Amino acid sequence: MHAITISQPGGPEVLVWTEVPDPVPAEGEVLVEVVASAVNRADLLQRQGFYDPPPGASPYPGLECSGRIAALGPGVSGWAVGDEVCALLAGGGYAEKVAVPVGQLLPVPDGMDLVTAAALPEATSTVWSNVFMIAHLRPGETLLVHGGASGIGTMAIQLAKAVGAKVAVTAGDPEKLARCAELGADILIDYREQDFVEEIRKATDGAGVDVILDIVGAKYLDRNVQTLAVNGRLAVIGLQGGIKGQLNLATLLTKRGAVTATSLRARPLGEKAAIVAAVREHVWPLIAAGRVRAVVDRTLPMQDAAEAHRVLESGTHVGKILLIAPQASDQASPRT
Amino acid sequence: MHAITISQPGGPEVLVWTEVPDPVPAEGEVLVEVVASAVNRADLLQRQGFYDPPPGASPYPGLECSGRIAALGPGVSGWAVGDEVCALLAGGGYAEKVAVPVGQLLPVPDGMDLVTAAALPEATSTVWSNVFMIAHLRPGETLLVHGGASGIGTMAIQLAKAVGAKVAVTAGDPEKLARCAELGADILIDYREQDFVEEIRKATDGAGVDVILDIVGAKYLDRNVQTLAVNGRLAVIGLQGGIKGQLNLATLLTKRGAVTATSLRARPLGEKAAIVAAVREHVWPLIAAGRVRAVVDRTLPMQDAAEAHRVLESGTHVGKILLIAPQASDQASPRT
Repeated sequence: MHAITISQPGGPEVLVWTEVPDPVPAEGEVLVEVVASAVNRADLLQRQGFYDPPPGASPYPGLECSGRIAALGPGVSGWAVGDEVCALLAGGGYAEKVAVPVGQLLPVPDGMDLVTAAALPEATSTVWSNVFMIAHLRPGETLLVHGGASGIGTMAIQLAKAVGAKVAVTAGDPEKLARCAELGADILIDYREQDFVEEIRKATDGAGVDVILDIVGAKYLDRNVQTLAVNGRLAVIGLQGGIKGQLNLATLLTKRGAVTATSLRARPLGEKAAIVAAVREHVWPLIAAGRVRAVVDRTLPMQDAAEAHRVLESGTHVGKILLIAPQASDQASPRT
Repeated sequence: MHAITISQPGGPEVLVWTEVPDPVPAEGEVLVEVVASAVNRADLLQRQGFYDPPPGASPYPGLECSGRIAALGPGVSGWAVGDEVCALLAGGGYAEKVAVPVGQLLPVPDGMDLVTAAALPEATSTVWSNVFMIAHLRPGETLLVHGGASGIGTMAIQLAKAVGAKVAVTAGDPEKLARCAELGADILIDYREQDFVEEIRKATDGAGVDVILDIVGAKYLDRNVQTLAVNGRLAVIGLQGGIKGQLNLATLLTKRGAVTATSLRARPLGEKAAIVAAVREHVWPLIAAGRVRAVVDRTLPMQDAAEAHRVLESGTHVGKILLIAPQASDQASPRT
């Protein structure tokens, strides 16, 4: 098969479409013939040499895919060759085939095409595990999403609204904020022009927000804690603004607040399977009902992964950037 | 009645036994004739002017007491005049009488004398709410308690052992550590001589601890996070080592860790009542069964609160320091 390999740590140009050996599904895994993958910010770090795959994972980038089951490894039941699926991956999505633990497989939601389904696994699993399983966002509470127009952000807005929460977002320009508003965001903050601490204070009559989903890390830590309501929870899932931040424990204590930080990729199989099962139970029905949708910025041929990385790095996208595998490009087209 | 009042912010000498008006129990409160109160570190901060009572609370120090119900306010049922109780307070324990919301009352545990019961409400409520209700310590997990010989520490060791957890403690000298060992602590760390990060690493084969109960705050923040196991939870309940600390979010993210900070005193009545109810359900039977006991360092007459503060500030105590109200001193003596 072919896969995007990282010839050496560096810029987008190090991503090379290369002939490599086919993966072989191990015990409890299936082999998926990939139709589409999607680009995640972690892929940029992996390409630069800052985020190695966990032990045993594919060396190729790609944390999610959609496709068809081509073979079953030993001990697999409940799935059949030919099933259309999407999957959460520890790596290897930018390829024609990938081996996937069965706990990370999801059916394609009713009414969604196979290409678009590649946009779902990472965003739904990240949002559901952090905002709902860890931070327990409840109906009537307020969620602040930093980077509301990202793949994660667009999913977080919709899921929070679907459960009856109020949503505030930050984004870098008015157009992105308008897209967030279309998805249901109630409070729109242009972080280039406005101070989110002050805007949240005004919008919540000083109460603050109950949950923050944060991709910035250190640079926002102190201001995020200031922005929490009493009993508020800050869930950090990205460190785009650095890793070492100042935490004012007196502020946190006054608010009886919590700061958590997680990544999905490094979790053991059992935890990933529990998250994927929860996503299938809680999120898939919302997608099938048309209440939550995948927001796709664009699709590109998988061989052009370098261009996809350039788009993601430019920050001009809204939602997910998908990569279409070559054998799939004449069989499937997205309906977004 | 008489109460210890704070004549002005300052040292122990500002604590003055003064005649003051009797408190009047409001709707949903009872009036307790105090037999004993106990000294908490927060009382030192209040005396120094750094920790004002929450709105509506008694201006006098004292976050817990034992005694007898002397009168019922409007709307109170389930309690009777003469009942022997102990209680979690928002203030006012250093006094002959105090008004208490019924949700913060506890019966005196079977087999315990009334004076000693004054040692229980704060320590049991703080430990139960943080270690069990927030951090969800489970059987087989490891808890690290900073300040293992304190009132909170001695209770945390016993409760964690009672549920089947392993316990590590830090303390400032070998005698205190020996007392912690008597209470069940498995891993003993002299923080004056040893680096707790390194000692925990050795004692857990590099795995770290699942929960940390911390009274130090900023000074320990970075090292506490280093000491957490994967899925570890740091519960900060004191800021003796400062309020602004460095948080390495990459370390926290790798561990999928959580940092929480809480205080009991500022919680709304409903939350306090829920904690007290959980303590009565889960902790009281352990005390009645003799598996958990109150560790009392000494008792002093309430009029000598200044001396009690000096002892607490000297850091030479193990367990709780109790203050005996004058009318009670001829009726009750502790059996510890």
